[in-house]
Amino acid sequence: MKTFSIAVMPGDGIGTEVVPEGLKVLQRAIEVSGEPVELELTDYEVGAKRWHATGETLTDKELESLRSHDAIFFGACGDPSVPSGVLERGVILKMRFGLGHAVNLRPAKLFAGVESPLAARPDIDFVVVREGTEGSYTGMGGSVRTDTPHEVATEVSVNTWYGVERAVRDAFERAQSRRKKLTYVHKHNVMVHAGHLWRRVVEKVGEEFPEVAVNYEHTDACTIYMVTDPQRYDVIVTDNLFGDILTDLAAAVTGGIGLAASGNLNVEGTAPSLFEPIHGSAPDIAGQQIADPTASILSGALMASHLGLDVVAKSIEAAVEADLAERGDAKRSTAEVGDAIAARLG
Amino acid sequence: MKTFSIAVMPGDGIGTEVVPEGLKVLQRAIEVSGEPVELELTDYEVGAKRWHATGETLTDKELESLRSHDAIFFGACGDPSVPSGVLERGVILKMRFGLGHAVNLRPAKLFAGVESPLAARPDIDFVVVREGTEGSYTGMGGSVRTDTPHEVATEVSVNTWYGVERAVRDAFERAQSRRKKLTYVHKHNVMVHAGHLWRRVVEKVGEEFPEVAVNYEHTDACTIYMVTDPQRYDVIVTDNLFGDILTDLAAAVTGGIGLAASGNLNVEGTAPSLFEPIHGSAPDIAGQQIADPTASILSGALMASHLGLDVVAKSIEAAVEADLAERGDAKRSTAEVGDAIAARLG
Ligand SMILES: CC(C)[C@H](C(=O)O)[C@@H](O)C(=O)O
Ligand SMILES: CC(C)[C@H](C(=O)O)[C@@H](O)C(=O)O
Repeated sequence: MKTFSIAVMPGDGIGTEVVPEGLKVLQRAIEVSGEPVELELTDYEVGAKRWHATGETLTDKELESLRSHDAIFFGACGDPSVPSGVLERGVILKMRFGLGHAVNLRPAKLFAGVESPLAARPDIDFVVVREGTEGSYTGMGGSVRTDTPHEVATEVSVNTWYGVERAVRDAFERAQSRRKKLTYVHKHNVMVHAGHLWRRVVEKVGEEFPEVAVNYEHTDACTIYMVTDPQRYDVIVTDNLFGDILTDLAAAVTGGIGLAASGNLNVEGTAPSLFEPIHGSAPDIAGQQIADPTASILSGALMASHLGLDVVAKSIEAAVEADLAERGDAKRSTAEVGDAIAARLG
Repeated sequence: MKTFSIAVMPGDGIGTEVVPEGLKVLQRAIEVSGEPVELELTDYEVGAKRWHATGETLTDKELESLRSHDAIFFGACGDPSVPSGVLERGVILKMRFGLGHAVNLRPAKLFAGVESPLAARPDIDFVVVREGTEGSYTGMGGSVRTDTPHEVATEVSVNTWYGVERAVRDAFERAQSRRKKLTYVHKHNVMVHAGHLWRRVVEKVGEEFPEVAVNYEHTDACTIYMVTDPQRYDVIVTDNLFGDILTDLAAAVTGGIGLAASGNLNVEGTAPSLFEPIHGSAPDIAGQQIADPTASILSGALMASHLGLDVVAKSIEAAVEADLAERGDAKRSTAEVGDAIAARLG
């Protein structure tokens, strides 16, 4: 029996409702698969409640102890009662940066039975490789003469060959094993320093992947194609901030963030990767058991695949696809959706 | 007879095809209005051809001489034969920064008769006030160890109370005279320095506009609403980079960038404002007289309104609306569209 040690971090709001469903389906899929594998779950409490009680977000000690796990299963963090940025920077980004989550992987697929806001209902099936450890997310910058008419506030986007290459190489590898098309997205006509670094890295790494067709799009243009021609994409690679924006849009055109899963991958294997829905804590609908747990369940599939449990991952995806195809307008609670998907596993 | 002096800058690609149509319709609308007004046009050559011949983009002397005009009518700049960023930074951004174009105004309206990619065909009618002189567009930053595996490239987003307030105040004024709803969009959970400056400015200026309802959205969330619920927006105010991205998306959901006009406004009246389509030079379709000049024609209406010629502006908008309502799939050349809209003016 192989034991995988999983850090479980439901967090705030609907995070606490969807994570149990993600785990329920994952556990059931492992059982059904007959693989000699078990999960050992360790809970970590992070989020608004703890911050209010203790002033802590995620401590350095906890960050260290996270390293001992094989993966992290995360829900969501954030609450209107906490100043914006405190939990995001203190929990989510602290893990992405501290654990070297170079690749923020975000698949976008329009499943059968799912309504798209797009009239053309195009065939959408691509993945976004969002760089996860640099760009505008480093927190560098600051402000002077704060809260006066002379205030100056800066944000520094930091980009390194090392960081960009990790994401770009991962994206080329994915493109190579998919439809062999890579679109890299930036704004190199304006942000010339970072943009030209990205361009050079793509050109250089691309030499190793002669079969992959590469094209470039400005971020603004990419948003247009996302609604007029999303079937053009196979793999998109882009920077942290552009990736944040484009993947919410990609989720929207494929049926909404209720379905969008993601993996924050340490591609060098030096620390555990983290799996989470791309949606947030959604305080407006929290506590009512009406949140859709599908994104968390699909994040469980991404985690299974990352742990080498491909059969498990595939069975979860198939169960989700089957559920989506017949879902219609049925009103089900969060747990009922989890149960229904688990029941399809065999 | 009052004479308005207009600097005309067709630029590259389809810029040279759409600008004449924008001017044709504007001139005709002035004639028909009977206003005692004439336009004096001065051509400025900028773009790829000149850069190849002389290495020049827009010289400092030309920037100075632009100040003597009442407004600038711009087409587009950019060509694959010129390194990315050279013309953008050397012409377009040089004017926006040099002439203090604090407000980049971008209306988004889904006109009758225009196809939307959105299945719901929502009622879309909002304006985006994009800050135009700072944020990630300043060009600050650089790179070291360039083109080596140890390269570091930075981009510095610079935000000042002064700059943000100019845009925010303009946005509140517009909201006050529209449906009294202002959405400010940022990413203050990640970019805390700039984001919290924006938040404070919105709160402070908002005290002067008690009737305007204000709400905040993260940029990523805004892209979702743009395709699922765009009718929620009246006025959006946001930073330079987010505004760039969101207005292309807004154009896409309202029928495409062939229709989207913009004004780069010096709100203090210390230098001329500039009016341009939000689309680029589109080298792939240039020189064939197939570009849609509607965005340039609507930019002419924005310019007329800026010059105080409200009757002229309204008549152009009405002529465009009438043309769009009956346009259907008719194949017309660039000039034919201009002629048809001009003919509707009376
Ligand atoms: C919550 C926030 C820090 C985060 C981000 O901006 O990356 C979220 O939007 C996401 O996409 O995972
Ligand atoms: C051409 C480019 C510099 C410009 C921008 O990024 O602002 C364009 O995309 C726009 O929106 O006007």
